[in-house]
Amino acid sequence: MTEAIERALAEIRFDRDGLVPAVAQQHDTGEILMLAWMNRDAVRASLSEGRACYWSRSRRRLWRKGETSGQVQLLRELRLDCDGDALLLLIDQQGVACHTGRRSCFFRGWRDGDWVVLAEPVVAPEALYPETAASPAINFSRGRNGSQQNSSS
Amino acid sequence: MTEAIERALAEIRFDRDGLVPAVAQQHDTGEILMLAWMNRDAVRASLSEGRACYWSRSRRRLWRKGETSGQVQLLRELRLDCDGDALLLLIDQQGVACHTGRRSCFFRGWRDGDWVVLAEPVVAPEALYPETAASPAINFSRGRNGSQQNSSS
Repeated sequence: MTEAIERALAEIRFDRDGLVPAVAQQHDTGEILMLAWMNRDAVRASLSEGRACYWSRSRRRLWRKGETSGQVQLLRELRLDCDGDALLLLIDQQGVACHTGRRSCFFRGWRDGDWVVLAEPVVAPEALYPETAASPAINFSRGRNGSQQNSSS
Repeated sequence: MTEAIERALAEIRFDRDGLVPAVAQQHDTGEILMLAWMNRDAVRASLSEGRACYWSRSRRRLWRKGETSGQVQLLRELRLDCDGDALLLLIDQQGVACHTGRRSCFFRGWRDGDWVVLAEPVVAPEALYPETAASPAINFSRGRNGSQQNSSS
């Protein structure tokens, strides 16, 4: 297992920060749920545990998707692109992918000159993080327009 | 138009290199075709021309997808994720997305301890680049395993 995973890693081209972008797609519907980042340890953990693990750039640590919210992504297949510098994860999303409670993080569309919200939350964000809602453990930073800048769920 | 596009750009969080990852998905089938990078000019060109334009990191210039190969991506909708640092392009791919002649760049899957090729070319790569096949204009570099490291098509 370990040796096989090191063979998988050998074909992946990580960037100067040791990261590679990873797209999560619901395996049966084709829905794009999110884009996150993986380092070598995140790939190792994902392949050995059968669930999507990422590198959280904001928290600077391995992030087992759903570890706080329970919204786990079961890994069905890992795919690699032609030049080895992007990953596609075919997953089975338990619940929602987005920290806003929406199924997908890509819920804004550019239509007629504005960003339009295309989907509403299906779960209240407070229900995703009941113990951490008032805690700094999930460290949301605020962007220039006051929106939350962290997509962990 | 220009003013609207600048409003679109204001919500996008480009990285320290002025880039944002962009996933191209066939609008009707849900197929993930590729992941590439956009800078501000690539977003401007994509929105004003209605076709996917990227920033080519290897060639360090604006890359109107299909400008050499004819494999244009008509832009149906641009989407933005919750924290504004990833784009999803719903496109109508003319022909193939991958420089290898395959429909999608994500044609390798990790199965039983090996990267397995899951799709064969539907167009010969030589047919995609008839005039540049022997030219250095498309600058394929070679990776440590000898595979081509450029995904332009």
